[in-house]
Amino acid sequence: MGGNDHAFMARALELARKGLYSTHPNPRVGCVIVRDGEIVGEGWHVRAGEPHAEVHALRHAGDKARGATAYVTLEPCSHHGRTPPCADALVAAGITRVVAAMQDPNPEVAGNGLLRLMHAGIAVQSGVLEAEARALNPGFIKRMEQGLPFVRVKLAMSLDGRTAMASGESQWITGPAARAAVQRLRARSSVVLSGADTVMADNARLTVRPDELGLNPELSFLAASRPPQRVLVDGRLRVPLSAAFFQAGPALVATCAAAASRDRYADDGHELLAVASSNGHVDLRKLLLELARRGANEVLVEAGPRLAGAFARQRLVDEYQLFMAPKFLGSSARPLLDLPLARMAEAPELTIVDMRAVGDDWRIIAVPSPS
Amino acid sequence: MGGNDHAFMARALELARKGLYSTHPNPRVGCVIVRDGEIVGEGWHVRAGEPHAEVHALRHAGDKARGATAYVTLEPCSHHGRTPPCADALVAAGITRVVAAMQDPNPEVAGNGLLRLMHAGIAVQSGVLEAEARALNPGFIKRMEQGLPFVRVKLAMSLDGRTAMASGESQWITGPAARAAVQRLRARSSVVLSGADTVMADNARLTVRPDELGLNPELSFLAASRPPQRVLVDGRLRVPLSAAFFQAGPALVATCAAAASRDRYADDGHELLAVASSNGHVDLRKLLLELARRGANEVLVEAGPRLAGAFARQRLVDEYQLFMAPKFLGSSARPLLDLPLARMAEAPELTIVDMRAVGDDWRIIAVPSPS
Repeated sequence: MGGNDHAFMARALELARKGLYSTHPNPRVGCVIVRDGEIVGEGWHVRAGEPHAEVHALRHAGDKARGATAYVTLEPCSHHGRTPPCADALVAAGITRVVAAMQDPNPEVAGNGLLRLMHAGIAVQSGVLEAEARALNPGFIKRMEQGLPFVRVKLAMSLDGRTAMASGESQWITGPAARAAVQRLRARSSVVLSGADTVMADNARLTVRPDELGLNPELSFLAASRPPQRVLVDGRLRVPLSAAFFQAGPALVATCAAAASRDRYADDGHELLAVASSNGHVDLRKLLLELARRGANEVLVEAGPRLAGAFARQRLVDEYQLFMAPKFLGSSARPLLDLPLARMAEAPELTIVDMRAVGDDWRIIAVPSPS
Repeated sequence: MGGNDHAFMARALELARKGLYSTHPNPRVGCVIVRDGEIVGEGWHVRAGEPHAEVHALRHAGDKARGATAYVTLEPCSHHGRTPPCADALVAAGITRVVAAMQDPNPEVAGNGLLRLMHAGIAVQSGVLEAEARALNPGFIKRMEQGLPFVRVKLAMSLDGRTAMASGESQWITGPAARAAVQRLRARSSVVLSGADTVMADNARLTVRPDELGLNPELSFLAASRPPQRVLVDGRLRVPLSAAFFQAGPALVATCAAAASRDRYADDGHELLAVASSNGHVDLRKLLLELARRGANEVLVEAGPRLAGAFARQRLVDEYQLFMAPKFLGSSARPLLDLPLARMAEAPELTIVDMRAVGDDWRIIAVPSPS
């Protein structure tokens, strides 16, 4: 059974991945119903507020669910949220065995869904392809376990680690394939976060442009239906409301400036969020805690060396995605991160987990090593 | 026959590769003798002054060479050098067909070896796995075709493109696997070239240490028997003869300072080479021309940002090998290349041809794009 369990769970994970761009704040979840060694139902969670993966799969299976095994990439829920508990639906459908890839990451509820099934006489198992299942929902898991979102910092640089010329000239360092990859990073995130420098210098809008995602029509449509929230860190409210960033749609502005401006932003459809300051800047950790409280799973930081460097210095980064263009910008050009270090011993160690060609550019994924 | 021709030439290339660390100033060449579809002789060129690949293979084949086909990775020579012409040896042994991967790259002799064979009634063919054969001898080919060596610049950097802390602290950015790879780059080169800054700051010796090559005993022995010449660019003769670099063995010092010091260097076993200056610095192109005249095929530049940047600025670099350590050294740290550019349009474009893990580090091979 072990080999089959893996194969069916792998299929459930494949289904879950279809929700990559649309389930937030919910996790991506897939489900497969198997009877007599054959798949009789498949489902995946599409969007928050809509049915969970198990419900779709049970509907698909119909009567064939009786006596069948359900493979689900996350422990079925046991509580009434916007939809009834999936555990109950599985029992009602006559499922006799449930295999989960992982328990619910919320420590207060972990295991309760499986217990509920067990008490209903269903054989349960957890931990099949758990690492793969965890990798699918880094943000949801971190938010449940630590009350913080998963923070991914995207940087585009030259081979010699520079992001822009000293003059600020910087557009189009990387090519179209890298830009599409960045669009997909935005689309999978709950929040795309930037700073005043970037938004003003590059006229950045930080929107998702569905036709630039390079995805099939179904996924592009789903991505467009759940765009990430755009968050601007603007401690002193330097970015004018006439900036392209604000014109592109409603945004959240994190500031430590006086709240007197709140109405002015609200009138234009934006929310001003007062965050405590730390050394005269927005306290980034406090901001992340608030974003998590509002349901942000994955936060994509697309910022200049100053803000990205601040996230790095405060060890708030879970993953770096470096897009490297095959050119030298030279030694006068701007640095990747504003990270002034005096001694080698202070240099943050990372582990490079992936490096691959993206068009003519290369993408490096690096994660901070445990210190 | 096409498929077999490729397979036998691939074997000849494999043999040629055994000479990677020892044939210079000669090219790496391999030869396979095939009769009735079976390999009856194999040979490769080991060291300059010793028999060519064809001679080894013919000796191995003995009487079985009569009526056989010879596969050789480079057109057999037709002139008397330190050894008699291989074309004659092939004729004398009764070879009836010769397949070469490529012609002799020297435009003045290209094709003469094959012509000589043809006139002796032997069937000849050239161009089988030519790209692979050319890749094996980039330095020899460039020297023959352009009178310049193939210049490879090795740089070790952090993920953010830095080579050392501002203080100069820099040793051991990369790990043991990367250092072994650099040792192998040195060993395959005719010349390892550095500058006064590096030699003084890092106490660099730039020697090949056979036990650090990570090669089998035979190749380590061959590498040790043909160490690269160590060349120091020291325009103003700043490096004292007491430096570790000079203590490690005889060296060539390229300078534009007065030749009055020549005897002092000669007394310690080193050669002082006067090179014209260009803007107060050693004219690097003239130096490379002289190194090629002396037989240098591949030159490995292991230098700091100033000298490496000068090679880059003057477009004298054929290949960059960047060893990237998974850490951030920060924005105060030293740049990869001293290459002050004002506008993006001036940024040299490169093509990344290879990127792979080397221990915990990564190696990027990039070549300048044709401009």
